[in-house]
Amino acid sequence: MEMPVPNPAILARKEAIIAKLRGCVPTDALIWDEMETRAYECDALTAYRCAPLAVVLPATTEEVSAVLKVCHAEGVPVVPRGSGTSLAGGALPTADSVVIGVSRMNAVLETDYDNRIIRVQTGRTNLSVTGAVEQDDFFYAPDPSSQLACAIAGNIAMNSGGAHCLKYGVTTNNLMGVTMVMMDGTVFEIGGAHLDAAGLDLLGVICGSEGQLGVVTEATLRILHKPEGARPVLMGFDSNEVAGECVSDIIKAGVLPVAIEFMDRPCIEACEAFAKAGYPMCEALLIVEVEGSEAEIAEQLALITDIAKRHNPVELREAKDADEAGRIWLGRKSAFGAMGQINDYMCLDGTIPVSSLPFVLRRIGEMSKEYGLDVANVFHAGDGNMHPLILFNANKPGDLELCEAFGADILKLCVEVGGCLTGEHGVGIEKRDLMAHQYRPEDLEVQMAVKDVFDPAWLLNPAKVFPLAASEGRRVVQVAAE
Amino acid sequence: MEMPVPNPAILARKEAIIAKLRGCVPTDALIWDEMETRAYECDALTAYRCAPLAVVLPATTEEVSAVLKVCHAEGVPVVPRGSGTSLAGGALPTADSVVIGVSRMNAVLETDYDNRIIRVQTGRTNLSVTGAVEQDDFFYAPDPSSQLACAIAGNIAMNSGGAHCLKYGVTTNNLMGVTMVMMDGTVFEIGGAHLDAAGLDLLGVICGSEGQLGVVTEATLRILHKPEGARPVLMGFDSNEVAGECVSDIIKAGVLPVAIEFMDRPCIEACEAFAKAGYPMCEALLIVEVEGSEAEIAEQLALITDIAKRHNPVELREAKDADEAGRIWLGRKSAFGAMGQINDYMCLDGTIPVSSLPFVLRRIGEMSKEYGLDVANVFHAGDGNMHPLILFNANKPGDLELCEAFGADILKLCVEVGGCLTGEHGVGIEKRDLMAHQYRPEDLEVQMAVKDVFDPAWLLNPAKVFPLAASEGRRVVQVAAE
Repeated sequence: MEMPVPNPAILARKEAIIAKLRGCVPTDALIWDEMETRAYECDALTAYRCAPLAVVLPATTEEVSAVLKVCHAEGVPVVPRGSGTSLAGGALPTADSVVIGVSRMNAVLETDYDNRIIRVQTGRTNLSVTGAVEQDDFFYAPDPSSQLACAIAGNIAMNSGGAHCLKYGVTTNNLMGVTMVMMDGTVFEIGGAHLDAAGLDLLGVICGSEGQLGVVTEATLRILHKPEGARPVLMGFDSNEVAGECVSDIIKAGVLPVAIEFMDRPCIEACEAFAKAGYPMCEALLIVEVEGSEAEIAEQLALITDIAKRHNPVELREAKDADEAGRIWLGRKSAFGAMGQINDYMCLDGTIPVSSLPFVLRRIGEMSKEYGLDVANVFHAGDGNMHPLILFNANKPGDLELCEAFGADILKLCVEVGGCLTGEHGVGIEKRDLMAHQYRPEDLEVQMAVKDVFDPAWLLNPAKVFPLAASEGRRVVQVAAE
Repeated sequence: MEMPVPNPAILARKEAIIAKLRGCVPTDALIWDEMETRAYECDALTAYRCAPLAVVLPATTEEVSAVLKVCHAEGVPVVPRGSGTSLAGGALPTADSVVIGVSRMNAVLETDYDNRIIRVQTGRTNLSVTGAVEQDDFFYAPDPSSQLACAIAGNIAMNSGGAHCLKYGVTTNNLMGVTMVMMDGTVFEIGGAHLDAAGLDLLGVICGSEGQLGVVTEATLRILHKPEGARPVLMGFDSNEVAGECVSDIIKAGVLPVAIEFMDRPCIEACEAFAKAGYPMCEALLIVEVEGSEAEIAEQLALITDIAKRHNPVELREAKDADEAGRIWLGRKSAFGAMGQINDYMCLDGTIPVSSLPFVLRRIGEMSKEYGLDVANVFHAGDGNMHPLILFNANKPGDLELCEAFGADILKLCVEVGGCLTGEHGVGIEKRDLMAHQYRPEDLEVQMAVKDVFDPAWLLNPAKVFPLAASEGRRVVQVAAE
């Protein structure tokens, strides 16, 4: 993946820039030693690495503002970083950039049950937001697989979803307000403990903007009351297409499970070998979870199993207790770990209309044969968010490139059936060249013009989201005045 | 309310402009006779009127594009119009503008139960979207009071809500994609039958943009399966504050009714006189509706009535059948008509954090005495969307101005407690000057810079949303080349 040439004027001024940053944050919050900046050279897309000029770990919005003012004045690119769990390279530094890591900003600022909100600093991890309110039977709904580690900052940047977003929506549906620092250091407040806002929906455009518009330091999140209970049912089918049709029929019937998870045979085999969850060996498994009161659960499951039976399932297993429920989820939740143990893999993230599932799965199978690379499919089927895992051998020359070409073809297929390039991982560097497949030049021009408004010199999170030539063409390279 | 001075160059060229528009739409879809354009001189904010230069009623996206190309080339302002039900003057023309009315664009383009979506032309009325799918037990959730008349185009422009948005969200939560024509005639597709999108969330920024960014001609809307049943409960309290606390407690308990509607004494009296719904005479009434299976309804109502009982209700009436349910809703649904029969009124629309309800209601009561104007409160309490109705006498000189000043003070109060100027009616011309109370100049500058991207010459829906001096200052007045 091509990265921009670092600005030599910035590299030459490293010491002067560090001296100015030293005035912004405590000594232990500034890292510029080349060995130490290595810890920030990549995120979860580990195929691409580049150590930054420096890393700052501010503790407050004011410190973030001070750092951005310095970088703005010096013309230094800035890479905002949550917990570094991006699978799309959303936090990959450039050699001339300052990384702003929010990991020290993890405080709960306010818990307000009257308004069903919590206000946190954005370095707080997703799961620990729920941790702060679960003693009062509340929870924060979006649940990315990485929820133990990933930060709210990254969730907002990528508009993250998770297994339960079929019912509860993704981050944008659970975000009420943000404090954001613009590239010039200006602090903005958008939204708050109320719905909607006057004028243009800037909160919406900021959520999912991948650190291109500002650094979000605080967030007001909607919290929900925990459901009384939840129960999954496991269904096995003898083809991907039939499982896909079953998903379509459940959605069409208007039931709203909290989750519909899909695993195909390669994934089932890997999970079973790894987690021994007792999955049946078949072509496709669905885990459908519903929640509510006992009566409601029973009623929804009856409807769902009726639909499943019409598709001749080879297995239909309803969890009778918490233990059985745990076993049903065990395999799915360890899917990524299981795949990682047997193979190198690339995890894709594309979204398609639910009705296209059977067709897209069949085409992925055909392409898998053409490329000679296996694919395991595990994904949020209910809302059409696919996560095909392409298996490859990182030690075999050319395999990564082949895998990337295959991945690009899968994502183009998603766009062709009326879907899009990304569901929850974002574009990052991974998919920036594919943006030209989803959008016409004039569409991209509008998006880039909106970025111009927030970050006229294009200093924020360089080389991401837009095709490299386009974003580099817009970047204003400043010559230091000294 | 001050309106911009019409551009004399446009008025002088009226015939030439009409001639060009004649090439864009059939003869009967173009109105320029001064008597006939009168029908479009205002929307539901009837205090302000101005007939436009011409009105076009296109039937297709292509016709809209052709009209916009002509207006763009001629530098003629364009006012997009749904059904004209805006209470904020969102469709008020200027004398030099062309109104694009979407009323002929009311077709259903696609119904897709697999993906739970419907695609319609945006002139279709809100209620007739549900009408197109209800035979299959589906419905479209957002339900503004004007749903019989209002168009999807206006719902998107204002991000409309309704009584049931507490559970189902507002328009932005139910909008999956749009076809939008930019001011220069370019046709854009954004979103579709899938969740999320790559890059910036332009769909979010378009929803609620009040016709400032483009003309939305087609929309992909999420449809939901009808709940099995629904049942309201009526609660009466002897003070607004206690009713407000009861609302807070229901929200805090984490129950999610589909609707929590609030009426105060002046409103109860007017509704009772008009609709004879059998409401008790007390200080405040709540209508709380829950839905689901019988078991779920019973369980939720038990929890809600328990909470209500802790606040010493003077009345607690659960609907036993459809007939009783109908009577409970009858008064609320005729509230606006009832108020209109006894008084002139101005209907406000502000949003506050739910926990501030008791305080805000008390302050409105105090201000009512100071201004000497009665206020009736009827609103969606569950999500903090208030609709105070200020009663005045349109025939009494000075009363309208006094009413407007009072209204502005109420909306400023909403902003002060952490809420905002508008929940679902939009800013329009009504609240444009108040934007300076919600936003700092630099916040407004960012919003206006985003509009610059979509409509550089500021021809779309002039004199709305932003303070007049600011938006007129940005407008590029073109001198005709002839």
